[in-house]
Amino acid sequence: MRLDVVTIFPEYLEPLNVSLVGKARARGQLDVHVHDLREWTYDRHNTVDDTPYGGGPGMVMKTEPWGACLDDALADGYEAGAHGPVMVVPTPSGRPFTQELAVELSTKPWLIFTPARYEGIDRRVMDEYATRMPVYEVSIGDYVLAGGEAAVLVITEAVARLLPGVLGNAESHRDDSFAPGAMANLLEGPVYTKPPEWRGRGIPDVLLSGHHGKIARWRRDEAFRRTAEHRPDLIERCDPAAFDKKDRETLSILGWAPEPDGRFWRRPQNVEE
Amino acid sequence: MRLDVVTIFPEYLEPLNVSLVGKARARGQLDVHVHDLREWTYDRHNTVDDTPYGGGPGMVMKTEPWGACLDDALADGYEAGAHGPVMVVPTPSGRPFTQELAVELSTKPWLIFTPARYEGIDRRVMDEYATRMPVYEVSIGDYVLAGGEAAVLVITEAVARLLPGVLGNAESHRDDSFAPGAMANLLEGPVYTKPPEWRGRGIPDVLLSGHHGKIARWRRDEAFRRTAEHRPDLIERCDPAAFDKKDRETLSILGWAPEPDGRFWRRPQNVEE
Repeated sequence: MRLDVVTIFPEYLEPLNVSLVGKARARGQLDVHVHDLREWTYDRHNTVDDTPYGGGPGMVMKTEPWGACLDDALADGYEAGAHGPVMVVPTPSGRPFTQELAVELSTKPWLIFTPARYEGIDRRVMDEYATRMPVYEVSIGDYVLAGGEAAVLVITEAVARLLPGVLGNAESHRDDSFAPGAMANLLEGPVYTKPPEWRGRGIPDVLLSGHHGKIARWRRDEAFRRTAEHRPDLIERCDPAAFDKKDRETLSILGWAPEPDGRFWRRPQNVEE
Repeated sequence: MRLDVVTIFPEYLEPLNVSLVGKARARGQLDVHVHDLREWTYDRHNTVDDTPYGGGPGMVMKTEPWGACLDDALADGYEAGAHGPVMVVPTPSGRPFTQELAVELSTKPWLIFTPARYEGIDRRVMDEYATRMPVYEVSIGDYVLAGGEAAVLVITEAVARLLPGVLGNAESHRDDSFAPGAMANLLEGPVYTKPPEWRGRGIPDVLLSGHHGKIARWRRDEAFRRTAEHRPDLIERCDPAAFDKKDRETLSILGWAPEPDGRFWRRPQNVEE
């Protein structure tokens, strides 16, 4: 997979040399090109922004440097034999970046990231390149960053670990929170390792029992407990047909109940308060 | 504000020297300490992980290095006059990190981040420190990363830009997506700057009209359009009492309608398909 990143803070992308992504680059699984947008400016102040049309606070990133830099990055990639570019624009007004979208992006041969600063990039840049390739405007969450670079690190890492051969143990995908499967909508519960006692704290007896069925049941109950506490929305999205008898018992103990039509379980209002 | 980060990839935190966070450090608004967890291991392989109790794939981060490192980081901070530490644990099974939580964290004097790798940190570490300080387990979104370091960059940036004096223009907070206020639940629409024509693409006439009312109306309609497309959930969460006559017209054109009881607007099912 080829990755291009256009940014005014190329040094922010240093983590792409580290850990999982760094190793994937070293093994030739990822071909990363970081471009400094200011090298595509032609005034002596290297201007990349200007005031917004229609007034208001903040600055907008100008079309010309983006157009010039993206054209060169594309030409360079095609010349090197890359194909099928997809533009990924991190923006708080994009559609949510999810594990499903990470999986989708991991199948693309070439991602071009355009992390912006200030109030964002002049709309015409996205409109222009959308005539030549798919453009994904994505938001990594409901919070405001100073720029899109941190989002590029997040998206790159989520995508890179899904590439064939990048994670050592294929097993590690299956139990991921948010991965498809039986526990699809449940968060993972607590984990423990040696020693059996630390600062007076032990571990749950069941984990030492060697009884696989009981351990699996305990983990599932803990996952329900954790999800009910931190992400009730995920339980509400579960299909109750996937709940077994013990799941229903656990949910009842946590104060949840099926809706009258039985289609979903909800936490009663008085528990929520 | 003091920030401590404990990690096995200290070089991943290099972006904390760049841009907004880097400048805040240079001005003394942020006092950042990155600790390499492996320096608190005492075997010759610098082991930080072991197999999970109860079996299963993946590795769990051990209590001892975390406990030793966190104790030293805390002692160092208290000695330097810091107070009121709060632990922030990035984990996919945490509660969602939101702009509201960023605002809350920005009021704390001292944040200690514990980004994990592998299947996470032995639960007893969080249980232990929760007896001494608030522990926030947070998830930056519904996707899986290789480790918590990227999440630390995201959270730090979202928090740092809210600190007094870090952003140049106070105005810039007010229009943020997800910030409290009139447009609280709407995404921002397109932005434009000079030149008025680029590669044959113009800008909407209204932005050149100089008519502030019309420009504000156009921006609000574009925000509704964008939000309806990318985040219908945000419109469903709006209180219709906040919609004016033109808002209702715009939503109707987009295929939305009020529910029979008038409490919320929804996009009819057949449009969604």
